Amino acid sequence: MRRVAILGIGQTKIDEHWDKSLREIGGEAAFAALQDAGLEKVDSLFVGNMLSPLVSGQNQLGTFFADWVGLWHQEAVKIEAACGSGAAAFRAGLMAVASGEIDSALVVGVEKMTDKAGHDVTAALATAADSDYEVEQGVSFVGINALVMRRYMHEYGWKHGDFAPFSINAHANAMHNPVARLHQKITLDQFEKSSMVATPINLLDASPIGDGAAAAVLVPADRVASMPGRPKIMVAASASATDTIAVHSRRDPLFLSAAYQSSRRAYEMADVTPDDIDVFELHDAFSIMSALSLEASGFAERGQGPRLGLDNEISPKGRVPVCTRGGLKARGHPVGATGMYQIVEVVQQLRGECGATQVEGARIGMAQNIGGSGATILTHILKSG
Amino acid sequence: MRRVAILGIGQTKIDEHWDKSLREIGGEAAFAALQDAGLEKVDSLFVGNMLSPLVSGQNQLGTFFADWVGLWHQEAVKIEAACGSGAAAFRAGLMAVASGEIDSALVVGVEKMTDKAGHDVTAALATAADSDYEVEQGVSFVGINALVMRRYMHEYGWKHGDFAPFSINAHANAMHNPVARLHQKITLDQFEKSSMVATPINLLDASPIGDGAAAAVLVPADRVASMPGRPKIMVAASASATDTIAVHSRRDPLFLSAAYQSSRRAYEMADVTPDDIDVFELHDAFSIMSALSLEASGFAERGQGPRLGLDNEISPKGRVPVCTRGGLKARGHPVGATGMYQIVEVVQQLRGECGATQVEGARIGMAQNIGGSGATILTHILKSG
Repeated sequence: MRRVAILGIGQTKIDEHWDKSLREIGGEAAFAALQDAGLEKVDSLFVGNMLSPLVSGQNQLGTFFADWVGLWHQEAVKIEAACGSGAAAFRAGLMAVASGEIDSALVVGVEKMTDKAGHDVTAALATAADSDYEVEQGVSFVGINALVMRRYMHEYGWKHGDFAPFSINAHANAMHNPVARLHQKITLDQFEKSSMVATPINLLDASPIGDGAAAAVLVPADRVASMPGRPKIMVAASASATDTIAVHSRRDPLFLSAAYQSSRRAYEMADVTPDDIDVFELHDAFSIMSALSLEASGFAERGQGPRLGLDNEISPKGRVPVCTRGGLKARGHPVGATGMYQIVEVVQQLRGECGATQVEGARIGMAQNIGGSGATILTHILKSG
Repeated sequence: MRRVAILGIGQTKIDEHWDKSLREIGGEAAFAALQDAGLEKVDSLFVGNMLSPLVSGQNQLGTFFADWVGLWHQEAVKIEAACGSGAAAFRAGLMAVASGEIDSALVVGVEKMTDKAGHDVTAALATAADSDYEVEQGVSFVGINALVMRRYMHEYGWKHGDFAPFSINAHANAMHNPVARLHQKITLDQFEKSSMVATPINLLDASPIGDGAAAAVLVPADRVASMPGRPKIMVAASASATDTIAVHSRRDPLFLSAAYQSSRRAYEMADVTPDDIDVFELHDAFSIMSALSLEASGFAERGQGPRLGLDNEISPKGRVPVCTRGGLKARGHPVGATGMYQIVEVVQQLRGECGATQVEGARIGMAQNIGGSGATILTHILKSG
């Protein structure tokens, strides 16, 4: 298979875009990525999306966006893996270019969530869980994560406040990301006193939904080899793994085995170890997920994820910088788009475009996108140069 | 890229399976395909589905089914392209094996539609059309096809009864397909007098919905080269193309340009012409679509599709056998599964397993799956030997 490079990236501000339709939001990111790549056309379009049938009454988003951005007659398809849809679409585009089947791919992760009332969105998000054996019992998606977090605190003896650094770091970093959903620093005191959502998860443990889209253009690596200017960004590894869809079916509900599997394969493919990763855009849908991702991906011992935050290792100047552009917690979590925001952010880090939250000398970055409560996990490693 | 073979196939009867859940239906086809292939595991799972978020409240079907059929930790993903989801998933699995990224893929097309009331399903199917510019005007999916059919009859001077052979052939062939939804022969008289759905489309122009799943196992061709027994079935070509999502945006709403594009690419890839195709499983969601597919794919002149039916060329003994297992019209149209039923049926023809509707000496077969009103069209060509 051919090596593949990321030639262009684009993203929209994550917000409640009541004045913009689904196609406008996705189109904005798509055009930005094409412009950044200096291309007008690509061979194929891969769209990551989770909720458009439920929220916008629109299926067939591949063709829908190919039509909107002027890729008439080109191949187009939609990929869905719940909140992991963005990275799953990226992987599909990557494989198509790597295989030689096509010579360029545009990948767009897009989600419009705020056109519906909150309870409708909560119901829509629950479709990521097991409809027969989880949702049917009345548990919501945040409820499932709350059960995991409570069990984790019980098992390893952490207090709720021990998770605060994850959210404080995310909010601090988002202050410097113009497209982030939330621009407000938070303190430990605010974190502890925030409104409860599903005990022990409160509002500052949970990522906000939003409307947004992020995109990237993929081409064979040899096409960028001779280009002057910006650092070349190569896709060094891509891996996807699954776990049981219901959390209660897992041997150990506190271990993200799909993160372990996909990150291990990715390290092998990129020929690196966790120590080599300069920046890690992880999937902090809830603060507990930050801890579990760090552990399963080899950055912390089992049950010791929160320690990295408490030891101040996760800031852009730390040993394991995470959520450098705000993460899901403060950049926002437009579910099917999130995986593509992570890819875009790693590219920005490797290009050195992150200003106040730039990780100095970042050369190797990792993005990990999670669908469901750890059910589908994709890990991508990018390298500059 | 490596050549890829189809090692196993499986399917469920299309019906109103009120006693079976989504996972049971998909699992049945998946296990049948694995058993037919003589495998217990595959590397990755690709699921084609359109409506599960709307009808079953379930997203993330890739992981959902990987869990159910015991493919724990394996990669899994869902692909959606409206009624073209089945073939789109097949193409994704094909590319993954062809690229060398994986060594075996299970592709499952699955749909559960009959758990909801008819008007809910009609609304769900309309998500294949343009939500902003078609559905918002109050037109249903069958309504869009009715507009196309009326225009076609006006433009080329056909009467409604001229489309009857498509439905009569499909129903006659379905009599010999045990998994078909409808087992009843129909006559020209019945066709003409059937209840109107959306003028000029009546009940016998339209395919019935249903619950069903069909699956196939893909492996590199060299793996089957030395196997004794059954004919080896090779994937000779795969191509996907799109058109505008809204029919009214097309230069000519009576020409399926995406069928033209994808079939032309497929012929080139397989090094064949329409004359070489022994059996053509086309996407007869409505009788008008049979005519348009035959024309755009090079089997009939523009506006002359119905002639093939009237001249008795489309039966299993004709020059262009179509819908040999009943087609969407009588085998049934479980939307996201349909593309995989077509693939399974072409394999059955090339294996010589079709009994009374066997196309004698069939060696090259084509399947064409359509998403929306001609918006996404995938063409696959299979060869035996």
